[in-house]
Amino acid sequence: MPRYKLTIEYDGTPYVGWQRQTNGPSAQGAIESAARQFSGHDISIRGAGRTDAGVHAYGQVAHIDFERDWPDETVRNALNSYLGQAGERVVILSAHRVADDFDARFSALRRHYLYRIINRRVPLALERNRALWVAKPLDADGMHEAAQRLVGRHDFTTFRSVHCQAKNPVRTLDRLDVRRTGDLIEIEATAQSFLHNQIRSFAGTLRLVGEGEWTADDVAGALEAQDRTACGPVAGPQGLYFMKVDYPDEEG
Amino acid sequence: MPRYKLTIEYDGTPYVGWQRQTNGPSAQGAIESAARQFSGHDISIRGAGRTDAGVHAYGQVAHIDFERDWPDETVRNALNSYLGQAGERVVILSAHRVADDFDARFSALRRHYLYRIINRRVPLALERNRALWVAKPLDADGMHEAAQRLVGRHDFTTFRSVHCQAKNPVRTLDRLDVRRTGDLIEIEATAQSFLHNQIRSFAGTLRLVGEGEWTADDVAGALEAQDRTACGPVAGPQGLYFMKVDYPDEEG
Repeated sequence: MPRYKLTIEYDGTPYVGWQRQTNGPSAQGAIESAARQFSGHDISIRGAGRTDAGVHAYGQVAHIDFERDWPDETVRNALNSYLGQAGERVVILSAHRVADDFDARFSALRRHYLYRIINRRVPLALERNRALWVAKPLDADGMHEAAQRLVGRHDFTTFRSVHCQAKNPVRTLDRLDVRRTGDLIEIEATAQSFLHNQIRSFAGTLRLVGEGEWTADDVAGALEAQDRTACGPVAGPQGLYFMKVDYPDEEG
Repeated sequence: MPRYKLTIEYDGTPYVGWQRQTNGPSAQGAIESAARQFSGHDISIRGAGRTDAGVHAYGQVAHIDFERDWPDETVRNALNSYLGQAGERVVILSAHRVADDFDARFSALRRHYLYRIINRRVPLALERNRALWVAKPLDADGMHEAAQRLVGRHDFTTFRSVHCQAKNPVRTLDRLDVRRTGDLIEIEATAQSFLHNQIRSFAGTLRLVGEGEWTADDVAGALEAQDRTACGPVAGPQGLYFMKVDYPDEEG
């Protein structure tokens, strides 16, 4: 069965999340439906990462197996055509034939996420479902400094959802950078893999630092506590973007 | 009656346009409704420019007269509170007490608009209602060069809607710049005032140049024709943003 790597953009607003679920439309379900119409057979796909309801993607990756070998462009254009007809907020940025042992989830070397905060006195209109609104002035430099206490290999129990299904709460966080450009504060996070709600837990905790409620030491203390109740409030999904997945060169 | 200058951001997607109309919700109507709830009396406001259904604003300006003198921040916060409660996609960025003879429309020295095109092979997901999608590769430099033929004082009959109510089709276009940044093509337009559909008519015509269908001379010829049927297809509203209005210093 010819396998393809799909790179996917979606607006998470109308979906219950990436993953197919019984309680509403999902990005995965939208692509599987388009693939079924295109190929004439049932297909299930696997994504590199699950995203929650309202979380967006500029570079989710999934793999898909067809019964026939199609040109890359045919796969991309056909899926986009069916997605468009269905009015879905999902597009296939690219489709590439890959080796049969490529796995969008397990072959991934690193995942990159972005969390966007708009820090201004007045609420959001054009960015309503695209960023978190924070009215109180945030100290982005202080947030960045505190974020560095989270980088490295740690037990991230404090920063994962109680619903997280991972057996092991230890992860290696490669990067957690906070940068301000005007009203926009961007938090960039990179790791081989993340726990459920980990980045939104970071964002909500760093917000407390930005507001002057917490110090960098408080963040380090929360990490060391290995206790979910030590976490700041989880930041909303609308600010989170799944940006990119790195794979070994031969599979990229 | 104390007069205030309001600077306004809105997502044009859910509205029939800026102007209050009987056929659906408008940005003007949303603000008037919030002002009525706040002040307890009926208020009508006047905007610097009418925008069509689906057109956005980062800096529309309107003036409003209250029966009482309120602090600027009170006006801004109260209107935003009522707009938010009503679930409107409109926010007041600022409110400033101005002289009684300030008129958002007639005092304006210059209006600035932006038209956004995303030029890539695949359709839009996150930018669906925020930009025009053009799949065919566009020559932005060629578009910019052709745009310069439109700058200056001209009869813009070719580039205005047949529904345009202006008595005089002569306008002075101060600036029409086209610039590419990656997939994004931005068209920036500045003039004291514009005709109905003028910028969307420019964008649709310049698109033909970008696609290689028209030359700069064809654009100049269309302008000289002073004939609406010589215009390229009008570009969609979702790419257009009302960015800013300049006023004399003392009223800014």
